Amino acid sequence: MDRIPILKMGDLLLVTIQVDMHDRLAMTLQDDLTARIVKDRATGVLIDISALDIVDSFIGRMISNTAAMARVLDAKTVVVGMQPAVAITLVELGLKLEGVRTALNVERGVQLLRQAE
Amino acid sequence: MDRIPILKMGDLLLVTIQVDMHDRLAMTLQDDLTARIVKDRATGVLIDISALDIVDSFIGRMISNTAAMARVLDAKTVVVGMQPAVAITLVELGLKLEGVRTALNVERGVQLLRQAE
Repeated sequence: MDRIPILKMGDLLLVTIQVDMHDRLAMTLQDDLTARIVKDRATGVLIDISALDIVDSFIGRMISNTAAMARVLDAKTVVVGMQPAVAITLVELGLKLEGVRTALNVERGVQLLRQAE
Repeated sequence: MDRIPILKMGDLLLVTIQVDMHDRLAMTLQDDLTARIVKDRATGVLIDISALDIVDSFIGRMISNTAAMARVLDAKTVVVGMQPAVAITLVELGLKLEGVRTALNVERGVQLLRQAE
């Protein structure tokens, strides 16, 4: 597992995070994603974290940074599929996922990105 | 990693396989997917394997079986994102992925499922 696949759906990109992130995987994802936003002229990025039972400060920061990178490339980011336990942990850790919008699932995330256009 | 997330997109379900499959994970995926097809009344299933560098006979059979299960539940299956090396291996292994249609990427897979309706 050396990279996380990025799926194109219209003018949106979908990333499903299923494995534990480490430094190199996170950097590769950010490299790939920024390159794909430009190449595919994407207007939005959906990051699905429904497979994650735990989100620590590293992943929290990685998501925030990725959203910030997308933003300067004129693409909006929505995090979808957050598990209840993850929401609790994020608040308890004081992680606010700044600049990142969230939605219950991919469908609602797509709606959110379409509305924001 | 105890289960692979299944994402709902309209009346389609999307599964992105990123990790090496083992028996229990494959069985959990089949249980989850068949339950979700019924629950979400899905008409199609997209299985993205773009993250897989290698597809062995176990995964090949798992994909064929999953497609067969979806079919008896009246949902069509499209495998998307196959890497060139995987296509070579599949043919060399004599695996035909019977009953499974393939598409270059998620977008084309969605088109294929829409046409098939």
